[in-house]
Amino acid sequence: MNDSKLDFKLHSKDGHARAGVLNLKGRTIETPVFMPVGTNATVKALTVDELKTLGYQLILGNTYHLHLRPGDETVRRLGGLHRFMNWNRCLLTDSGGFQVFSLAKLNKVTQEGAFFQNHLDGSNMLLTPEKSIEIQENLGSNIMMVLDECLAIPSQKEKVKKSIELTHHWAKRSFAARKSENNLFGIVQGAEYPDLRLESAQMTCEIDFDGFAIGGLSVGEESELMYEIVSRVSPELPENKPRYLMGVGDPLDLIHCMEQGIDMFDCVLPTRNARNGSLFTFNGKISIKQEQYKEDPRPVEEFCECEVCRNYSRAYLRHLFKANEILASRLNTFHNLWFFKKLMEKARKAIVSGRFGEFKADFLSDYCQ
Amino acid sequence: MNDSKLDFKLHSKDGHARAGVLNLKGRTIETPVFMPVGTNATVKALTVDELKTLGYQLILGNTYHLHLRPGDETVRRLGGLHRFMNWNRCLLTDSGGFQVFSLAKLNKVTQEGAFFQNHLDGSNMLLTPEKSIEIQENLGSNIMMVLDECLAIPSQKEKVKKSIELTHHWAKRSFAARKSENNLFGIVQGAEYPDLRLESAQMTCEIDFDGFAIGGLSVGEESELMYEIVSRVSPELPENKPRYLMGVGDPLDLIHCMEQGIDMFDCVLPTRNARNGSLFTFNGKISIKQEQYKEDPRPVEEFCECEVCRNYSRAYLRHLFKANEILASRLNTFHNLWFFKKLMEKARKAIVSGRFGEFKADFLSDYCQ
Repeated sequence: MNDSKLDFKLHSKDGHARAGVLNLKGRTIETPVFMPVGTNATVKALTVDELKTLGYQLILGNTYHLHLRPGDETVRRLGGLHRFMNWNRCLLTDSGGFQVFSLAKLNKVTQEGAFFQNHLDGSNMLLTPEKSIEIQENLGSNIMMVLDECLAIPSQKEKVKKSIELTHHWAKRSFAARKSENNLFGIVQGAEYPDLRLESAQMTCEIDFDGFAIGGLSVGEESELMYEIVSRVSPELPENKPRYLMGVGDPLDLIHCMEQGIDMFDCVLPTRNARNGSLFTFNGKISIKQEQYKEDPRPVEEFCECEVCRNYSRAYLRHLFKANEILASRLNTFHNLWFFKKLMEKARKAIVSGRFGEFKADFLSDYCQ
Repeated sequence: MNDSKLDFKLHSKDGHARAGVLNLKGRTIETPVFMPVGTNATVKALTVDELKTLGYQLILGNTYHLHLRPGDETVRRLGGLHRFMNWNRCLLTDSGGFQVFSLAKLNKVTQEGAFFQNHLDGSNMLLTPEKSIEIQENLGSNIMMVLDECLAIPSQKEKVKKSIELTHHWAKRSFAARKSENNLFGIVQGAEYPDLRLESAQMTCEIDFDGFAIGGLSVGEESELMYEIVSRVSPELPENKPRYLMGVGDPLDLIHCMEQGIDMFDCVLPTRNARNGSLFTFNGKISIKQEQYKEDPRPVEEFCECEVCRNYSRAYLRHLFKANEILASRLNTFHNLWFFKKLMEKARKAIVSGRFGEFKADFLSDYCQ
């Protein structure tokens, strides 16, 4: 059997929430799954061995960043992204579109693609659907994403209408451009308009993608709007394929959106927050730099079994953070990614045992106290 | 037996070079030994588990930094520095003097001590011999250092003459101030003057210290001058006690000074260089940021068995460094400290087997090619 093609099986459902198994590259990925972000061929501050210790099977790489530096051709010549970064598990790459629309200086968007100046040396570049697929194939991604247009929320409805057609046009071209057997996911757009979101979902689902993503959310809108869009779009996506909510997120968003049937998530939140001294616990977030932790001998989270909580006190983590020590970022990142892994495991267990509602209520009660 | 007292035994000599065993706290430290520097209760970028993997038994903590942040009283209340940083092996602390004379704004030096403004908040402080010992005892250091006056090289001879008397006065007070059974080392000063160095050595050796250090070198002078001073002072120190050359150093300096009978060294070089992308190999240093490594699939050092060389290419390390990734500092530091450990092991083996001269010639020939 060709194990480069993903095989997704639903294990059980609890309401709309789904517990599944995604087999890929000989690896078993239990869903719902959270994917840490490894922008520059590294999940910031961690080694791949630590990601394995944490139990992650699937991480994300950024097409835009890797295309600019070190260059996808360089990565290809060095044996692909897995080998380059010494990660033998699974990799998903985005299309680069989101960074072109947020990080770079966007010049213009045409049918052909997105013209922009990159944020590193300001040189002019063009990202087309075909180029994005070529880059992702050079990287050797296991799950590639189509190029899509990302709009702000709110956006004018007429603009969004045109945009989802462009995204659909790009989706077809992306699908046709694929030369490898790597998996490819389509992306539903449509900003804040439920009717356009449904139209986009319908168009996207006409193409035989290996999975379907909802993009253009978590861009500053109210959580309630995000949940509303997800609850409308998710049921329109094929039951037998994975559903991926891009760029989400916050533990509360994860819980609410897996309740709506989302299987996959990614976000820089646990890693970025870690570097800013913000630590996740099941009793809510704590800011480790606070004076109250100066002589606090307790671990970040009592009863947490992660290496950080077993070995270091809040007082020590606060000290490292205040002294701007690299070890602060390391230990904080490790703990946060441990928390996210445990959160997903607990949620999945609750779905499997048919008590997701109870789990959600308990989690919210502790986390939002 | 009280294992807080160090027990030093000479194993063998090859010329002046010494191979010894330092037993401390139930741990066996083979000398000559290089001690990584853990300024802020962490060897920058590494965990204590990694230091153990690397085989280090003894690391250095900085009294000045820890006194300022998080505060030695805080560390004491949290169970001491070992517990605070989760390091169950041995710790040496400096006196804080070197930082007062280099990092802080020194206001004046009297018989009593050194008046200075600290570099963090500029507040006025006084470091006396007694205060330094008190701080080091609060930290729970296994090997403490006396407060000494550090002068620049060159310095006026009259000034140096007065200075070694002050250092001697402080040494006696430091010795008297000790309340614990922690070990305490004296320090020989005397700038660039061999006669004053010998006078300082004689005065220092009158006190029953547990070991003897040579301070005030590696402060910008020519290597030849350093080697000359070390070759004059080292034979004057007690044969049966460890000899520690402070703040050294460079692999060439290590080799030349262990040839003169030095047993202990510390320096920020391997860790600081690592963060600047400078990597040590037995064929010399390489600057990983160079363009020539962009697509170099080889490890930093061929045949190196460290985790970094076994798993990552120069191309990847270059990429991480250029992208300013935290992982660059981690991996580079690990490799450099591996190199320093191997260098010391090879040197010791050569001393034990009576072929240090040959080892030195071979090392220099490869390293300086």
